[in-house]
Amino acid sequence: MADVQFKSGKSLLVVGSLAFDCIETPNGSVDDALGGSATYFSYAASFFLAPRLVSVVGADFPQQHRELLARRGVDLAGLQTKSGKTFRWKGRYHQDMNTRDTIEVHLNVLSDFDPKVPEPFRDSSYIFLANSTPAVQLNVLDQVRQPEAVWADTMDLWITTQSQELLQLLPRLDGLFLNDSEAHLLTGESNLVRAGRAVLSLGPKYVILKKGEHGALLFSKKGIWTLPAFPTEQVVDPTGAGDTFAGGILGYLSTVKDDSLAHIRRAMAYGTVIASFTVEDFSLKRLLALDREEIENRLEIYRAMLGF
Amino acid sequence: MADVQFKSGKSLLVVGSLAFDCIETPNGSVDDALGGSATYFSYAASFFLAPRLVSVVGADFPQQHRELLARRGVDLAGLQTKSGKTFRWKGRYHQDMNTRDTIEVHLNVLSDFDPKVPEPFRDSSYIFLANSTPAVQLNVLDQVRQPEAVWADTMDLWITTQSQELLQLLPRLDGLFLNDSEAHLLTGESNLVRAGRAVLSLGPKYVILKKGEHGALLFSKKGIWTLPAFPTEQVVDPTGAGDTFAGGILGYLSTVKDDSLAHIRRAMAYGTVIASFTVEDFSLKRLLALDREEIENRLEIYRAMLGF
Repeated sequence: MADVQFKSGKSLLVVGSLAFDCIETPNGSVDDALGGSATYFSYAASFFLAPRLVSVVGADFPQQHRELLARRGVDLAGLQTKSGKTFRWKGRYHQDMNTRDTIEVHLNVLSDFDPKVPEPFRDSSYIFLANSTPAVQLNVLDQVRQPEAVWADTMDLWITTQSQELLQLLPRLDGLFLNDSEAHLLTGESNLVRAGRAVLSLGPKYVILKKGEHGALLFSKKGIWTLPAFPTEQVVDPTGAGDTFAGGILGYLSTVKDDSLAHIRRAMAYGTVIASFTVEDFSLKRLLALDREEIENRLEIYRAMLGF
Repeated sequence: MADVQFKSGKSLLVVGSLAFDCIETPNGSVDDALGGSATYFSYAASFFLAPRLVSVVGADFPQQHRELLARRGVDLAGLQTKSGKTFRWKGRYHQDMNTRDTIEVHLNVLSDFDPKVPEPFRDSSYIFLANSTPAVQLNVLDQVRQPEAVWADTMDLWITTQSQELLQLLPRLDGLFLNDSEAHLLTGESNLVRAGRAVLSLGPKYVILKKGEHGALLFSKKGIWTLPAFPTEQVVDPTGAGDTFAGGILGYLSTVKDDSLAHIRRAMAYGTVIASFTVEDFSLKRLLALDREEIENRLEIYRAMLGF
């Protein structure tokens, strides 16, 4: 815990999934590995502060996984345990590692997830609504009190099936993460810059458009910023890259005074670097061996790459 | 000509095609527009110095196109005019503007192109071998005397059909441009970082791996650098983006003392910015309205985007 810093007195709440992942890649596979959006997000954020987690698991969720998160300072007071099984996902990555097929999804206890934000979590400064139905995300927002900023992730399924709820959510967000194909789906724009601007017009103050191995674009009313991914030859398992990208961003933002553009850009650099570690091994393996110093070292290499 | 600078006393020779392009995009089309790798390259380079051009056209090539290049200071002493028709290319871009189909190719006078480098061009400091057969590229190299640096472009067709000649060429290059799919084809590596390193091991001192709207990666024995494309919502016609990227790079390099990594990275930023203008209109239209001041202004916006 020596490398976890508590500087700002701010707090960060994440609501999302804990999961068992079965992952096949051209280089190997893992079964029943610890995964889930809230797992990856909170682990990444834990390099900056001790995040608060709201999620649900089944009776099959082992104590060692709780301990893994607790050792990082993650506050598990909002983790419900229900009878039944934990959410399971099975995916297979294609040869290029940029695309994947979902082979199996078993929502299990997540299917009727009704998140309860514990009273001590309701004053959290920053809220991250990891990918779940817009209805669940709105439900969480109705439980928290005047957060400084609310960010959310979404996915193609909700854009297609719950667009009304999603359009209600967007004006209540400070920031939205979505990937290039989702931005296209939501706006009908094939040009990414136009698509990002169109998402911005739906309400969020910031939009971060994720392009996987090609980096990300940031949109605000003040302009557009672009950052490439950190180039790495060691791509073992891309699972969790997007959630650790978000976790690094919100984690860093929670340590600084405000969410000014300058801070968001630095936050994106931290998120990029942490995501580049995530993909270097299966599940959380690479993150388990990571410390803040290694993050700072890669951040400096990344900064030097972008200077000209 | 007021914005063309001659600082270093160095010279830059390009050997490549002049063409008539017929281009269809989701937003419109043009017929018989001035195109070709050497056209785009030399126009982009002309913002930095007066490049020398070796190419071939047919009797149908109009005087006005020669004048357009000559007004930019392009030395046309190496432009052969043959009986017959100029090279023609017809292409159609897909909705996302990142991919295209070649509909027609008429090599015409280019089919038996035997480049003759005029005596006064043989001492050129920098040589750019635009995309043509590796045999033609080797032929040019045998005509020049101790250039400071030789860069080349290639394409999937030569990787597939003339790999022996290409493998002879690579060790004679200081720099090679190729796109992501070509790097994969040449090396069998699907990870771009591994692919770039593998190309480097085939001989060039620098490899620049182009990813279209996602930017480019630079490989050298000293490391890897990444730059995103300049994000633009005005993508009318991507034709020539790669050649003007190269033209900006070699043009800038020809104005500085050496091809150190720091200079190459700044050169890539110039190339990125000029390419971002190229795609904003059909053929050379946007470039015709461009001046060095506008390039410098966008370069500063781009630099600010990448700081964190």
